[in-house]
Amino acid sequence: MKRVLVKDLAKYLNKEVLIYGWIEGIRKLGKLKFFIIRDRSGQIQGVCDKEIENLDKLEKASVVKIFGKVKEEAQAPKGMEVLIEKVEILNLPKANLPFEYYRDLSLLNLKLDMILDYRPLSLRNIKIGNIFRIQAGIVKAFRNFLEKQDFLEVHTPKIVSSGTEGGSQLFKVEYFDRVAYLAQSPQFYKQMLVGAGFERVYEVGFVYRAEDHETSRHLNEYLSLDLEMGFIEDENDVMDLEVKFLKYLFKYLKKEYGEILKEYNVELEEIKEIPRIPFYEAKEILKREYQKEFLGNDLTPEEERLLCDYSLNKYGTNFVFITKFPRIIRPFYTMPDKNSDYSRGFDLLYKGMEVTTGSQRIHDYDMLFESIRHFGYNPENFKFYLEIFKYGMPPHGGLAIGAERLTCQILNLKNIREASLFPRDRYRLVP
Amino acid sequence: MKRVLVKDLAKYLNKEVLIYGWIEGIRKLGKLKFFIIRDRSGQIQGVCDKEIENLDKLEKASVVKIFGKVKEEAQAPKGMEVLIEKVEILNLPKANLPFEYYRDLSLLNLKLDMILDYRPLSLRNIKIGNIFRIQAGIVKAFRNFLEKQDFLEVHTPKIVSSGTEGGSQLFKVEYFDRVAYLAQSPQFYKQMLVGAGFERVYEVGFVYRAEDHETSRHLNEYLSLDLEMGFIEDENDVMDLEVKFLKYLFKYLKKEYGEILKEYNVELEEIKEIPRIPFYEAKEILKREYQKEFLGNDLTPEEERLLCDYSLNKYGTNFVFITKFPRIIRPFYTMPDKNSDYSRGFDLLYKGMEVTTGSQRIHDYDMLFESIRHFGYNPENFKFYLEIFKYGMPPHGGLAIGAERLTCQILNLKNIREASLFPRDRYRLVP
Repeated sequence: MKRVLVKDLAKYLNKEVLIYGWIEGIRKLGKLKFFIIRDRSGQIQGVCDKEIENLDKLEKASVVKIFGKVKEEAQAPKGMEVLIEKVEILNLPKANLPFEYYRDLSLLNLKLDMILDYRPLSLRNIKIGNIFRIQAGIVKAFRNFLEKQDFLEVHTPKIVSSGTEGGSQLFKVEYFDRVAYLAQSPQFYKQMLVGAGFERVYEVGFVYRAEDHETSRHLNEYLSLDLEMGFIEDENDVMDLEVKFLKYLFKYLKKEYGEILKEYNVELEEIKEIPRIPFYEAKEILKREYQKEFLGNDLTPEEERLLCDYSLNKYGTNFVFITKFPRIIRPFYTMPDKNSDYSRGFDLLYKGMEVTTGSQRIHDYDMLFESIRHFGYNPENFKFYLEIFKYGMPPHGGLAIGAERLTCQILNLKNIREASLFPRDRYRLVP
Repeated sequence: MKRVLVKDLAKYLNKEVLIYGWIEGIRKLGKLKFFIIRDRSGQIQGVCDKEIENLDKLEKASVVKIFGKVKEEAQAPKGMEVLIEKVEILNLPKANLPFEYYRDLSLLNLKLDMILDYRPLSLRNIKIGNIFRIQAGIVKAFRNFLEKQDFLEVHTPKIVSSGTEGGSQLFKVEYFDRVAYLAQSPQFYKQMLVGAGFERVYEVGFVYRAEDHETSRHLNEYLSLDLEMGFIEDENDVMDLEVKFLKYLFKYLKKEYGEILKEYNVELEEIKEIPRIPFYEAKEILKREYQKEFLGNDLTPEEERLLCDYSLNKYGTNFVFITKFPRIIRPFYTMPDKNSDYSRGFDLLYKGMEVTTGSQRIHDYDMLFESIRHFGYNPENFKFYLEIFKYGMPPHGGLAIGAERLTCQILNLKNIREASLFPRDRYRLVP
């Protein structure tokens, strides 16, 4: 007999079925025994009115194979139930559950540490698990969109000989008799692959930042949605592409993940245009509109929140691009803006948080060489990267989206760890 | 004016076009100048019969923007050419090319080290670049197939606290004030995620093996195509799924990458059934048919070659599953075969090389705990992994396909480094 998924049971009314799953609820009512059976596709009520083998051994979290008949039943949660005829036990729990994962999340009142310490069990909670169902959708949309735009998927090494974003924040790896590092980004590699004739490449992969501080917005290992494209006019082409992607993504999520969005009480905006505000104008806006005068060449988290607030009030969107960041706080490969102190680097902020960093890159060999020195590095260490710039590098640019951050902001999660299956931070290395 | 890709030029006969690309050939014939222009989609001949700006500055590997008119021309390689009217130079090469990457690969006679030392440049050779175009296709087919089978894509940490395949071969990472390791496989995590209620998960990601030896079939960082599925009867369900995948893959590659297969002179077989030979029978076959009596509980590369030879002669396929490997050489989580010294672990060999390892796994907590001790490990170190086994783990199994190996075997490449964009081995950390 072939297994039927719970979500497909409606097609089997009054028929015999075999279902597999976990027991998530047990209730007795006189001679009747009710069970909630759950598989990857959902939950169904099972009912039994007689003594059958194994039935009394069942407890919550038991793994079972159930033979039965699908019946309409107006009082059952889904208008139907399975009349249990035979039960095979595949596994039984060996310990008491640390929490009742199958209960409504709002009633469980789980602390984040508990959720993460017992990660596989907390993921059994359907609402928690749905974070990763929709995250898989975000990644899928990223790929589908870029494939249609003729991007090639690539996989570039995570064990590298030098950093891309400056020398700090690198995890050291013992690589045989040498020291190597974990890649902070696929930056050099995706650029080299543009120059390799592929022109347009993307990568979905982990990157590593050895940031010592604990915040609700940083992970030490995070999933980066990276792309790089050749033959651009300037960084606006990259931003144009991202706007197009976000429109595609939001439509796709509304269509395919409407129920999860509803469960999280999220209404995704209809993206039209996303304003592009140069860094120095953004600082003026903060002063003029919010009486905030932050010094410094970067944006603080508070500034990011205020700028999104401004964008929402003035342009009706939760998104805003901040463009032309000061050169000094961007990596050396960022194209300067007309020889000024500003660069062609941009960030995309969404609901108060940076979710993307991008820029036009330097494509001229001499300029890049000079920039490396200007930033105080030794070009000798970047020889392998510089090489292809000698042989005809096209103008190019790209961006990186933090998958966990985007997931967080879409679902309004409070801590980025909620959007990582097994987060890695200063103190967390297991599970 | 909007850019037209070279592959689309036929649609623009007698029209003005703008193309971007690299110069890959220059030839003079009286007053005529011919150029080969190449973009990500292919090559086209450009011709010019007059003096125009920038034309004389062009050399091979120049990056250009060319305005011109598409003309039929019987003598041109594709029956058409672009009459060049205007040239803008986007970048010029700064050094002599180390090799003429645009020439036919068979004429270049490039040593592997040269190919890898100048990786971005060697990838500009279209035949070399095609290895990664088809590899992207293999990965895409893996995902598409599994999505249709209701698998969820996951991303599990690569910085871990312990090994999965035994204690050796681990790369150490300095993780703040602790020692961590690079993941040898997503094994524990994909199992935990089956138990987390997702039932069916897959991951495409790098894994790390600190193997000290240099062979043509090992990389220290390789792309693993991993899947894990719950509610199986036994390991045959996993093999059934792989056969189904391989059928899908080969059809897909023939349809979408026919030209690359032809370029590599590859005719993919039509997969029907793949024989499944238990380990001890395989050893008997080697003795009987090849007069080879290897001792040991594993297969040597030579044995793998002979078994594929046997499968081809006897069953007409380049594939063969070897099943029921001795328990002692498989990881501790492998399900024993009916309490014998054999296991429910299998390998898939293809054209003489192992391309997949898989098995049914142990799902019973006590049995798994015992197995860890049996293999000489301390269960305390695997506490985070064992936890979910206490709360109802379904019977499950899975497999991992080496993406570079599969690419190699499909295209008949000689060294696995050819199928890795930026291979990492004992001596190679750049580019």
